[in-house]
Amino acid sequence: MKNVLSGLYLWCMEQLIQQIEFIKEIDKLKYILRRTKLLHSDRRENDAEHSWHLALMAIVLAEHANEPVDLLKVLKMVLIHDIVEIDAGDVFIYDTKKNHTNTGEELKAARRIFGMLPEPQGDELIAVWEEFEAGHTPEAKFARALDRLEPLLQNTSNNGGTWKEFDVRYDQVVAKKKAIARGSDRIWAFAEDLLKQNLEKGILKK
Amino acid sequence: MKNVLSGLYLWCMEQLIQQIEFIKEIDKLKYILRRTKLLHSDRRENDAEHSWHLALMAIVLAEHANEPVDLLKVLKMVLIHDIVEIDAGDVFIYDTKKNHTNTGEELKAARRIFGMLPEPQGDELIAVWEEFEAGHTPEAKFARALDRLEPLLQNTSNNGGTWKEFDVRYDQVVAKKKAIARGSDRIWAFAEDLLKQNLEKGILKK
Repeated sequence: MKNVLSGLYLWCMEQLIQQIEFIKEIDKLKYILRRTKLLHSDRRENDAEHSWHLALMAIVLAEHANEPVDLLKVLKMVLIHDIVEIDAGDVFIYDTKKNHTNTGEELKAARRIFGMLPEPQGDELIAVWEEFEAGHTPEAKFARALDRLEPLLQNTSNNGGTWKEFDVRYDQVVAKKKAIARGSDRIWAFAEDLLKQNLEKGILKK
Repeated sequence: MKNVLSGLYLWCMEQLIQQIEFIKEIDKLKYILRRTKLLHSDRRENDAEHSWHLALMAIVLAEHANEPVDLLKVLKMVLIHDIVEIDAGDVFIYDTKKNHTNTGEELKAARRIFGMLPEPQGDELIAVWEEFEAGHTPEAKFARALDRLEPLLQNTSNNGGTWKEFDVRYDQVVAKKKAIARGSDRIWAFAEDLLKQNLEKGILKK
């Protein structure tokens, strides 16, 4: 019995050491810069800060989801959704040359990075990430809505931000942001109104 | 009936607008710098990145908690635990001149910032933050263990980091890090071993 217990303890400690290696690896997300900048700022946001902000949005705005959501699942999604960018890099949403769907490069990255974890755990996180990417479940639709909302607040505060910088027009922004409605009609009503205000102020152009 | 529904809709939208103001306010956490630096780096970590990293640690390491924990509660704790520092600033853990317990300044900050939310929601987050600060529940003990673990990994990777910078000795570090054991004996076993290795390598001194 004593041997079984000490064997179990050693196994747990091996799991832990493997998990710590993953925790150290994902520190790299703090260096992956997005195009958008912090509110009223010139400083580009990194993926770790962005993911934290989406997590807070999920906690605070969950009641506005179109369908009831499992908040824990939504939090896992937004906290891990960009980790693949450690290998695959950030793709700017209005970049027409790059494919924005779940690319082979991103899947490879997910397998390498989440694959650092003990097997059932790594597999679970890959599944959560794939569910987010597919965007079919209530949790994925809501998480994706939050991912679209944050840069809208940022660009509004920065007098157009990346819209101005990359000459993105009102209709293009609306086309991208409409996905918010799949997760939350109320958040979309707010976003649509904000976009119209930006159009009226000349921050966005037709 | 139509009036009731449109009244309810307006009420929901007012709540949403209030919540968005909170979401914009907490962007400031991305500017609050900690003393510790990113892994193998000279760049100081900010509170938003730090909170994101603890959230990932919670997801991955929850199985090592001494007592079963409600992961959703732990995530809320680590995601919001430093938000008060927007007003109160970061206090260095080895600063002997400042009080590290739940100060009046921090409570005031919690009331102002979480108080921006609709009332039951703001109150809930203040309660979660107070529970974290008190450190008595299984969730708070585990969340606080993670908060102690991250700088240990960072300073180890940075040849002593803030320990060297502020001449913090082995016994002082052990005294602070021992709190990890309240949340997880296994993580403490790992941490204690890492501290001993740092002592042997001269990264930490007696």
